[in-house]
Amino acid sequence: MTITDVARHAKVSRQTVSNVINAPELVREGTRRRVLESIEALGYRASQAARQMRTGRSRLIATRIEPAEDGINGTIHDRFLHGLTESAAGFGYRVLLYTAHDDQSEIAAVDDLLAAYEPDAFVLTGTHHGDVRTAWLAERRLPFVTFGRPWSMPEGPSHPWVDVDGAAGTAAATRHLLDTGHRRIGFIGWPTGSGVGDDRRAGWARTLAAAGVDPAGLDRTTDDGVATGEKAAGDLLDADRPATALLCASDSLALGASHAALSRGGGWRADGGGGTPIAVIGFDDTSVARATGLTSVSQPLSEAAACCVALLARILDGDEASAGEDGSATTRVLLQPSLVRRQSA
Amino acid sequence: MTITDVARHAKVSRQTVSNVINAPELVREGTRRRVLESIEALGYRASQAARQMRTGRSRLIATRIEPAEDGINGTIHDRFLHGLTESAAGFGYRVLLYTAHDDQSEIAAVDDLLAAYEPDAFVLTGTHHGDVRTAWLAERRLPFVTFGRPWSMPEGPSHPWVDVDGAAGTAAATRHLLDTGHRRIGFIGWPTGSGVGDDRRAGWARTLAAAGVDPAGLDRTTDDGVATGEKAAGDLLDADRPATALLCASDSLALGASHAALSRGGGWRADGGGGTPIAVIGFDDTSVARATGLTSVSQPLSEAAACCVALLARILDGDEASAGEDGSATTRVLLQPSLVRRQSA
Repeated sequence: MTITDVARHAKVSRQTVSNVINAPELVREGTRRRVLESIEALGYRASQAARQMRTGRSRLIATRIEPAEDGINGTIHDRFLHGLTESAAGFGYRVLLYTAHDDQSEIAAVDDLLAAYEPDAFVLTGTHHGDVRTAWLAERRLPFVTFGRPWSMPEGPSHPWVDVDGAAGTAAATRHLLDTGHRRIGFIGWPTGSGVGDDRRAGWARTLAAAGVDPAGLDRTTDDGVATGEKAAGDLLDADRPATALLCASDSLALGASHAALSRGGGWRADGGGGTPIAVIGFDDTSVARATGLTSVSQPLSEAAACCVALLARILDGDEASAGEDGSATTRVLLQPSLVRRQSA
Repeated sequence: MTITDVARHAKVSRQTVSNVINAPELVREGTRRRVLESIEALGYRASQAARQMRTGRSRLIATRIEPAEDGINGTIHDRFLHGLTESAAGFGYRVLLYTAHDDQSEIAAVDDLLAAYEPDAFVLTGTHHGDVRTAWLAERRLPFVTFGRPWSMPEGPSHPWVDVDGAAGTAAATRHLLDTGHRRIGFIGWPTGSGVGDDRRAGWARTLAAAGVDPAGLDRTTDDGVATGEKAAGDLLDADRPATALLCASDSLALGASHAALSRGGGWRADGGGGTPIAVIGFDDTSVARATGLTSVSQPLSEAAACCVALLARILDGDEASAGEDGSATTRVLLQPSLVRRQSA
């Protein structure tokens, strides 16, 4: 059912039908009524293209799909994307995808999309120190929300964002290890300078210190990966005063740590085997954690996606009056993660 | 930069600008020239909405995003979706997402999208026996391609599809096990009636038979999952004449099988430990396989996505003349999987 069918039925030109939809004031009343009757008789639904011409709104939210790089942590983004699509549909929006490999290529992709599809808003993921994407969007007054806080200016006024409190997650994991009798709890994380990684390390360090355990010497930094995690864990387990528990910034690192523990006769095994317990905890509750029995910190990804869409819907509907003086009360959402306990800790 | 800015610059109504873009024959030449000069002066790019009104083409390809159900096999879809987005961009198309939980709700979602966004084409995944979605789309002459062959009518004329030859994958895995000295090679797959599952079983059975090994009694069927895989594997390993190798229809089942092998002292361990080898091979080369050292059959997902987009682009550009008499030469693509060897076999 197209505008052409309506035109034929109403015996007017295609342009007249378009005018009735987009600029009814240009059409004489008799003609307008005839076209509207044809629209109703045929069950024609004005397409989004026509509606967009009239309203300037595309009802599209664009977001980047990230490659599943190491194949372990990538599933997080998949779950977020699914939640985003479902939540957006609830508000009458659809999700449009694009790819990019860094900040600059993402800006170029956004610019292209704006010219061609005019998305109403953007959801950016993977915020980081020195993120140039958010400034670019803000300068152009484009509606957007980030999943991830603005790490370079955490205290000042900022764009709307949704994030998960990673430090609260590692703090809860550390408390669990303390509660089960561990004192020498090692932490394996990424090199300092990553907002997300430093935050996760901070939760471990402050919880250990609060329990009277000096975290000095119990910390290892390494790039993400299974092999790097195994090496860092070996270092902590072979120390003069070895760690008895290993908290990791990712499930990739934790899986490597579990291999190191196993080969020293102290790991767990998903089949119930294994020797004396060296506890291991990961982060992100990935499929690998579920499959191997790894205790891990879980992010509420569906909730995060729903919050992103709800923030955008409010911005797009212009209801900013409900925000506080500094906007902080309603445009920043920090969600709490939870610890999913399995065999490994 | 909107149509309103152009109208203001050219000192005409917004509707006149729209007419210049969509129905230039309605606009007097002097006015048309003035509007076109303003469009050029302002660097206005006719939006997709305007272009869509004119051409009836949205440059959108819609596909369903599937929830990562068991968290292991779900990553396959994520990788396909990323490939689809990249390939579509290369042809000037964007990917629009929708969610659904069964055939009927997917048809409803497609119907909704057609009314609102008018996607040019659809990519359907997860084809199965009695699939009612493809008939629905075909009846309406909507352009679409499926990732997955039409299982209910594999020989007749059909819609365009791209698939991976699962039977060739299990055949290659079985040959590898035969070559490394195994004869009693068990197969753990899904209950009969699933197109994909029956195909994977067939590749194993015919390769074993060709090597002079009777497959009878070496086959177990079970629902997908880690626990079900462990149980089925235990059954094959505890038989009077136990299997020495286990080929599985998924990495979930294979992970369970590896637990069963380990607990009988015959598995492999990613850390290099473990006893005498009971070989295990999975299917899909998921993150779990990579993380745990599981040998697995890998699907060329980026290539499959690229083929889907290329088929659609050709259909949308109307170039069907290059197809053979029955269309089979150019509208059906069966890709070959490969065996990724790791510690488990």
